[in-house]
Parts: sequence; C-alpha cells; structure tokens
Amino acid sequence: METSQNKNTKWHDVITPTDLINHWQGHRALTRRAIEAFPEEALFNHTIGGMRPFSEMLMELLGIGGPGIKEIATGISSPLNEHFEHGNKKTKILDLWDEATDEINTYWVQIEPEQFQKNIKIFGQYEGTVYSSIFYFIDNEIHHRGQGYVYLRSLGIEPPAFYER
Amino acid sequence: METSQNKNTKWHDVITPTDLINHWQGHRALTRRAIEAFPEEALFNHTIGGMRPFSEMLMELLGIGGPGIKEIATGISSPLNEHFEHGNKKTKILDLWDEATDEINTYWVQIEPEQFQKNIKIFGQYEGTVYSSIFYFIDNEIHHRGQGYVYLRSLGIEPPAFYER
Repeated sequence: METSQNKNTKWHDVITPTDLINHWQGHRALTRRAIEAFPEEALFNHTIGGMRPFSEMLMELLGIGGPGIKEIATGISSPLNEHFEHGNKKTKILDLWDEATDEINTYWVQIEPEQFQKNIKIFGQYEGTVYSSIFYFIDNEIHHRGQGYVYLRSLGIEPPAFYER
Repeated sequence: METSQNKNTKWHDVITPTDLINHWQGHRALTRRAIEAFPEEALFNHTIGGMRPFSEMLMELLGIGGPGIKEIATGISSPLNEHFEHGNKKTKILDLWDEATDEINTYWVQIEPEQFQKNIKIFGQYEGTVYSSIFYFIDNEIHHRGQGYVYLRSLGIEPPAFYER
C-alpha cells in the first residue's frame, strides 16, 4: 500500500532537460529553414512597418542563444552582444546559426538538473530563474520567426511548415 | 553522506505544472493586450501577403487552448472547432479570450503530474506527448501573435512590450 510519504516523494517531470533541448533544437532547425527560404537581398533589406530586417532579428537570436546557455553552464557572465560579421551573405548567417547550434548542445549537457529552478541575472541584467531565461530564449525565437513568416508571405514566398521540426 | 542511490532518486524539475501554467497565462495576457491594440476594423480585415486577419488566427488559438486542456484533463476527445460567433466585435473576441483563460485554469489543475510524459492523440488526430501538445499550443500562440505584431506595426501601431507578461 502506498503511504502518503511515498506519494509525496514520487516525482514526475513535466519536461526533462533532454526533452527541452530537443524541443528547442527542433525550433532552431525550423528557424534555419526560414532563413534558407529568404532571397539573399530580402534577408538583409526587406522590412514592414519600420521593423528590422529578418537578419537583424537573427543577430539578436544569435546574441542570446549560444552565449546565454554558455553563461548558465559556466556561471561566467558577459554583456549582450548582438553584432556578428555577416557581410550580407546568407551562407554566413547559416554558418553562424550552425555554430550556435553546436555551442548550445555543448554547454546544455553541462547544466546541472538542479539549476533550472535557481535564480540568475543573465547577461548581467535580466533577473529570473534559469528555466524562465531559457523559455525566454525559445519564445523570443518563435516570436521573431513568426514575424519572418509575414516577411516571406509579403514577398510571395511560402514559409516552411510550422508544425515540422 | 549521500549515497549514489540517494543521488539517483533525487529529482529536480525543469519546470513544474504550476510554473508552466503561469508561463502560459503570462503569454495569454500579452496576447490579450495585442488584441486590444488592434483597431476594431483592422482586427477583422487587415492582412499581409494573403494571410488571415488576426481575428482568424485567434479563432484557431481559441479552438486549441481551452478545448485542448479540457481534453487532456478529462480524456474526452472532440474534433477541432475553430469557429466562434464574434459578429466582428472586438469586445466579443476579448470575452471569448477571457472564457478560454478560465477554462484553461479550471481544467489545468485536473491534469495529473504523471500525465505530462504520456502519449496522447489530441483532437483525435495529433499524436505526441501531453507536454509536447501543450508546448505546441503555447508556441503556436507566440508564433501567431508575432505575426499580429507585424500587422500592428504595418498599421503604425506600437505593439505591447514582448517581455512584459
């Protein structure tokens, strides 16, 4: 018979660290396909309503994802950097994206399971828990990619299927 | 001294069920502010690149969120319904949104912790785990709200701050 103590010590994950990185990398693969779908010039120039070109949104995502996970894993804080050399080349953006994918995977496995609920001040300025910071990284990518989808549609280009990861 | 057995049975949440509903409801409050930011006519008519008006995207989100959580909590499957009476009124959309907020909160607490990792075929057709289904609901809302932000910007309207929940 199960005692109430046993019941209390029985634990169930909503999502494991491995589930979460797989979920995010699925999103990152979709974002990569969205980058590929852009004509090179439009990636760096096309805008709507005074917003940034999609390449500039990607600079923000590149500044957050890899460096953010590195900071969580190592405890070493760096200021936010959203500038990367790309020379207006789509292939360079894709290379930067792939490097970030590797950096995220490398440092992800160094995050201890007990860290996710701990407090952090990421990039020396944003306060929250480790999990809420990581969710912000993912949500922010989904948000800006959704905007990139409108840019693509406005160019007459069909974006990659949202549900394929 | 901690034995290796103790270590193995020590468990750490990435995110708890309560964290996750708070995270989602924070997003849902932001989506509500995005709805409020639309001029009534634009909410139902404004489009870019042949996409749906924001109101139609909201019909999809209303069809998924409340009914999806109800199905997960009760085990009773219903086909996806993305049509709700709104009479082209913004106040009606906001009322539907608030009803969905209550429905999600009501059924969320009926989901058992051990369910999140279990398999489900949501709306009788989408196979995945319970957690991956819920993450899809949230991600899909962020994706479409990001598109709504471009609609707002294209109308010369500043969207609500993304980081405020």
